[in-house]
Amino acid sequence: MIITDTISTFFTETRQRTEDICAPLEIEDYVVQPVVDVSPPKWHLGHTTWFFEEFILKTYLPGYQIFDEDFAFVFNSYYETVGKRVVRANRGNLSRPSVNKVYEYRKHVTGAMEQLLSGEVSKELHDLVEIGIHHEKQHQELLLTDIKYILGNNPLLPVYSENFEENPSQDYTQDWIRIPAGIYEIGHEGSEFCYDNELGRHKVYLQDYEISNKLVTNGEYLEFINSGGYQTFHLWHAEAWDWVNQEQRKAPLYWHEIDGEWYRYSLRGLKKIDLKAPVTHISYYEAFAYAQWKGYRLPTEFEWEIAQPFFKWGDRWEWTESAYLPYPNYTKADGALGEYNGKFMVNQKVLRGGSVATPNKHTRHTYRNFFHPNLQWQFTGLRLARS
Amino acid sequence: MIITDTISTFFTETRQRTEDICAPLEIEDYVVQPVVDVSPPKWHLGHTTWFFEEFILKTYLPGYQIFDEDFAFVFNSYYETVGKRVVRANRGNLSRPSVNKVYEYRKHVTGAMEQLLSGEVSKELHDLVEIGIHHEKQHQELLLTDIKYILGNNPLLPVYSENFEENPSQDYTQDWIRIPAGIYEIGHEGSEFCYDNELGRHKVYLQDYEISNKLVTNGEYLEFINSGGYQTFHLWHAEAWDWVNQEQRKAPLYWHEIDGEWYRYSLRGLKKIDLKAPVTHISYYEAFAYAQWKGYRLPTEFEWEIAQPFFKWGDRWEWTESAYLPYPNYTKADGALGEYNGKFMVNQKVLRGGSVATPNKHTRHTYRNFFHPNLQWQFTGLRLARS
Amino acid sequence: MIITDTISTFFTETRQRTEDICAPLEIEDYVVQPVVDVSPPKWHLGHTTWFFEEFILKTYLPGYQIFDEDFAFVFNSYYETVGKRVVRANRGNLSRPSVNKVYEYRKHVTGAMEQLLSGEVSKELHDLVEIGIHHEKQHQELLLTDIKYILGNNPLLPVYSENFEENPSQDYTQDWIRIPAGIYEIGHEGSEFCYDNELGRHKVYLQDYEISNKLVTNGEYLEFINSGGYQTFHLWHAEAWDWVNQEQRKAPLYWHEIDGEWYRYSLRGLKKIDLKAPVTHISYYEAFAYAQWKGYRLPTEFEWEIAQPFFKWGDRWEWTESAYLPYPNYTKADGALGEYNGKFMVNQKVLRGGSVATPNKHTRHTYRNFFHPNLQWQFTGLRLARS
Amino acid sequence: MIITDTISTFFTETRQRTEDICAPLEIEDYVVQPVVDVSPPKWHLGHTTWFFEEFILKTYLPGYQIFDEDFAFVFNSYYETVGKRVVRANRGNLSRPSVNKVYEYRKHVTGAMEQLLSGEVSKELHDLVEIGIHHEKQHQELLLTDIKYILGNNPLLPVYSENFEENPSQDYTQDWIRIPAGIYEIGHEGSEFCYDNELGRHKVYLQDYEISNKLVTNGEYLEFINSGGYQTFHLWHAEAWDWVNQEQRKAPLYWHEIDGEWYRYSLRGLKKIDLKAPVTHISYYEAFAYAQWKGYRLPTEFEWEIAQPFFKWGDRWEWTESAYLPYPNYTKADGALGEYNGKFMVNQKVLRGGSVATPNKHTRHTYRNFFHPNLQWQFTGLRLARS
Repeated sequence: MIITDTISTFFTETRQRTEDICAPLEIEDYVVQPVVDVSPPKWHLGHTTWFFEEFILKTYLPGYQIFDEDFAFVFNSYYETVGKRVVRANRGNLSRPSVNKVYEYRKHVTGAMEQLLSGEVSKELHDLVEIGIHHEKQHQELLLTDIKYILGNNPLLPVYSENFEENPSQDYTQDWIRIPAGIYEIGHEGSEFCYDNELGRHKVYLQDYEISNKLVTNGEYLEFINSGGYQTFHLWHAEAWDWVNQEQRKAPLYWHEIDGEWYRYSLRGLKKIDLKAPVTHISYYEAFAYAQWKGYRLPTEFEWEIAQPFFKWGDRWEWTESAYLPYPNYTKADGALGEYNGKFMVNQKVLRGGSVATPNKHTRHTYRNFFHPNLQWQFTGLRLARS
Repeated sequence: MIITDTISTFFTETRQRTEDICAPLEIEDYVVQPVVDVSPPKWHLGHTTWFFEEFILKTYLPGYQIFDEDFAFVFNSYYETVGKRVVRANRGNLSRPSVNKVYEYRKHVTGAMEQLLSGEVSKELHDLVEIGIHHEKQHQELLLTDIKYILGNNPLLPVYSENFEENPSQDYTQDWIRIPAGIYEIGHEGSEFCYDNELGRHKVYLQDYEISNKLVTNGEYLEFINSGGYQTFHLWHAEAWDWVNQEQRKAPLYWHEIDGEWYRYSLRGLKKIDLKAPVTHISYYEAFAYAQWKGYRLPTEFEWEIAQPFFKWGDRWEWTESAYLPYPNYTKADGALGEYNGKFMVNQKVLRGGSVATPNKHTRHTYRNFFHPNLQWQFTGLRLARS
Repeated sequence: MIITDTISTFFTETRQRTEDICAPLEIEDYVVQPVVDVSPPKWHLGHTTWFFEEFILKTYLPGYQIFDEDFAFVFNSYYETVGKRVVRANRGNLSRPSVNKVYEYRKHVTGAMEQLLSGEVSKELHDLVEIGIHHEKQHQELLLTDIKYILGNNPLLPVYSENFEENPSQDYTQDWIRIPAGIYEIGHEGSEFCYDNELGRHKVYLQDYEISNKLVTNGEYLEFINSGGYQTFHLWHAEAWDWVNQEQRKAPLYWHEIDGEWYRYSLRGLKKIDLKAPVTHISYYEAFAYAQWKGYRLPTEFEWEIAQPFFKWGDRWEWTESAYLPYPNYTKADGALGEYNGKFMVNQKVLRGGSVATPNKHTRHTYRNFFHPNLQWQFTGLRLARS
Repeated sequence: MIITDTISTFFTETRQRTEDICAPLEIEDYVVQPVVDVSPPKWHLGHTTWFFEEFILKTYLPGYQIFDEDFAFVFNSYYETVGKRVVRANRGNLSRPSVNKVYEYRKHVTGAMEQLLSGEVSKELHDLVEIGIHHEKQHQELLLTDIKYILGNNPLLPVYSENFEENPSQDYTQDWIRIPAGIYEIGHEGSEFCYDNELGRHKVYLQDYEISNKLVTNGEYLEFINSGGYQTFHLWHAEAWDWVNQEQRKAPLYWHEIDGEWYRYSLRGLKKIDLKAPVTHISYYEAFAYAQWKGYRLPTEFEWEIAQPFFKWGDRWEWTESAYLPYPNYTKADGALGEYNGKFMVNQKVLRGGSVATPNKHTRHTYRNFFHPNLQWQFTGLRLARS
């Protein structure tokens, strides 16, 4: 079956890519968790592996030997259905299993999966493996953002890799793309993989709107800072204003003002701000305040989806004005995988697009990413709209 | 001008009604703040008065004498534009100004306002007074819900008034109202008063849906409790599940299980649960979990607005699935009154309808109420929808 | 029996004095609890009454009718032995029972006690009543300090009474009293009332020491402030330094710097600092840091007790260097009254003396008061010693 | 000079011993900090090294090259005098400097120190080096207790070393040693090394007392548990009772009840409780409650010091009833080393003796260890006294 070949290769490549991301790390970098939102790289390596063991190998590979009975407790993330687990905030307190042991675990599971995929692959199994692969790709992105947080909050500001380019320049003219009012179709179609939260293609009515062909740049964001944006309460939501003051925010995450000049920590180390690069590591609160200050607004996720053929995207996850809610007719999958998306559909904002940290073949124009509005550690960005 | 007469009467009636609500209280009941979301009744009395003084009398009544310069500090709620204020959590720590002094303040301001309204009233002034009146009506509702919280969390469970009926029976057959897919118009129209967040009447596309003619009753909700609803994680959002466990929730607010029977605290004191009355004092989290358990869902605020002519509403504020977001073309008012609605448009859910505590002439079918999804202390309720 | 007459009069006078202290209050002042260490005056009135009802009337007065069964729950402070109680932090959330109801409760219990004391009084009963009276006297002091906190933290800074003089001047020459090394006797002797923590008179060996005849004054303390004492970490304990920085302390409690001049809130309202009055409302941390800065130290409680005949005391509770620990042979009383002192003998510091708020006949030279080292709301002060 | 030889050898042995303690660790074990009281082993290695660099090499070795300018920030513990530092709670968030880099740092500093000590050594330098060595020995003990916490709180319960014997049996008859009342001398004498807090030998008066020749055993402590000791509030201090309930304590740290039998985690892994071994990993709160339950008490540190020649000690740090306070005539050293002891003299309890984790030549009969009363992670124990 040709399907086997593809999924098997896709699986092997994805597993390898995860390990490539970790190659520049010291053993110590795999272990720490400086804030609760960040997980230790070692945990990502183990968790993505446990996912295949728990949801696939235990059921589909006859005679499969579980690598270590205790690992389900250590590497379950939030699946209530499949049992107890280490509290998220404690992931960085665990020195064991060691990094070497986790790599052995990966080898054990990858090998067993490859054995499984070398035979005939049913549609049901294929679909589960596909979810497992995309799940691991999501963690590849988190690996990069968590590694950046771990190194970027270390007083020594170590370099991850000189080869990681974060800042594609946007050196072209800003324009407004006009979309006329009318009924449009939203959501995934076709047989390619997508998550349950993109399904249920449906009609929406959009008013006339315009949307920028460019992301907001560091240079433009600096004007906002210099104009006193972080000190002007009427630009901010009430909760955002509390956040700015309690956390004493004055700039995006990783920005440092040194002797009157702005620098940013990047995966290449501490560098001067590049004025033409799109701003990143801003919260929704900051994205909204910037738009208020400019007299514009953020697009909704529907406006973004309809207009996206007309602009280049994929450098930054883009905050939208939309809350993360179910589409009409949304239904959760049965069993543990039903916990994947639906239970987060409250108090979060939708982001659209993708980022420099997003793996190959992972995002698409109907992909709905979501985070709490105060979070900055992703490679987030901002595109303006107006009515 | 006939307009004067109306607004003047409307003003006087509203001011009187606020004081009527407080008539059954002991002095001590005016002072306490058992949780940060609840304000002392004394504070509501002062704050609604300060609103007229600050935004109208200081500007429009020549020679007006401010009652007490310190009161702006004590009775400002959240208007950053007009200066510093007592931190919300400290409102219940203030024994002074005394209740008598606050009533003197009310008399002083009501008198000055009546004097102002006895003359010619410009459109601009009229509109400001109208906002002030509706602002006070909002606080009338909060007064009742805060008084209920203050008394209902006292171990002596005192009665507020035997005359306050909370529980209109819904003793009629449940039916589903069907609405066909299509383009509908949402938002306020006409010249009657409304808030800025209802403006910008606009088209939306709705899919086919059905909505119940009845609210969910105590009897139905009791089945959810008895079936283990509060112990079944897959019915809840992830944040909701944390809330249930941290707060050890097992029933709506004010419910007490005594010797195997369910009672609820009402403004008439502790009473047995009335099975035919609509359930109330539930959070959005609970409303959502109930709907999941039934296999249905909550309506969006748009579905509610279009279907509302076909059902009776007004007994409970009804949680919707919609997040509180700006309508297309929403713009904030200038100055301090621009802080009224827009800055809360993140992390909150829309409620539609009105409740037994809502004052006369205060709500309407386009009214958008909003609260954080964990709050229970309003007279909230739940209506089911399905696709 | 002559004993009856004395104890009966002592009881009646004490009960009256409590109510006199509250006479200047507004109803609202009885209710609030701005920090957890402060109790609402209403609560003190009820608690001291409940103490007589619970520990005496229920047992010793045949046919006594409990005033209200719910009050044990509301007015128990910390007696685990006698049942559940309102959590301390919630005392200020209770508007009921009303102040009037609490005064009725006092009248009911005072009357019953007077009836009981009009008959023959056994030694056992006499001793219990004596404890009850001294317990109420302790609460009289707390009433004054809590009232000061309630009014002194109100932005309107209301006056309690023009008649309350807090600041006896110490306008005489500072001298050092020399005590030679040797064995001394510590602890209560004689048949007068004392608490269990003063009992077990025993020998201690003291080294040669000197102790000041005067308390440190506001003028002297101001020099410490002006010399940068609050910014000089080596004067402070490590925990004290954290406290100074987290709480941003720069002066004693109730001091306000207004246009470059120092004022203090007193029970007479806001007044200029009196340079010759003894400093007050300082924590142990501040007392210690001041002594370090001067090159001296605080006395131990034993040094204080031996030297006290040679100096005037009673204006300020005086922090000592001694931790609050049991004397040799200390044993707790049986039953609920055994919870009175012993269970607090960890992490607290001993204070000796008495203050302007201490009731008549309440303190004595062996009296051991105790508070956590960070607390400032008592009328505390500071006397220096040196070796 | 013979003095050089001794101190040089003592230095080299001590440095080596620290590294021997860490030899069984995986790299990952060096990095984590599961609670704020525990420091990562990597940090101990660096901090003890920085101590020699900062206080000795920078001043005494001409031409010394600082290994890395950033390390002062990373490895300063609490010396305010010498500059800013990583907040204690963040030590476990630092993956860099790597373990290898820290060992290079050790080698660099050890080599420079050996060079310095190979020449003539002044008295001043000798005394500083001696403090540095004893400082490192204190951290050797902390290394063992912190490693135990790191491994003992890991769900995999890994073994540190099969060779570490924690539990010397106390298989001999319990006896009471009687000490008559009188004046005794307390504190260090002679020219051997001691800390400043042991100095100022002075007289104290002790009452008649008796003290046990044995530590309380696991078997005896188990009787306390089985009799309901953790559920009986009158045995506990008020703060201790809150601690028991908030932390849900039911046994010493590291005890696990599995299928009705008690096990303990030790550095050799999970083992059954040894009934004849002295109980360990108890807080002062637990030691006190046990003594209350037995009808005895804890000794004071003075009683312990006078009676110690008559019993074997050194297996457990023994909680005393004494608060950690300065001896008469105590004076802090000048400069940064003055921060060593004095600033902790509030809210802590004295422990006497030493433990299985205490390095050779480190403790002595006048040594005063001190911890907060709730801490359990040291090898603490309990000896009874009575009057």
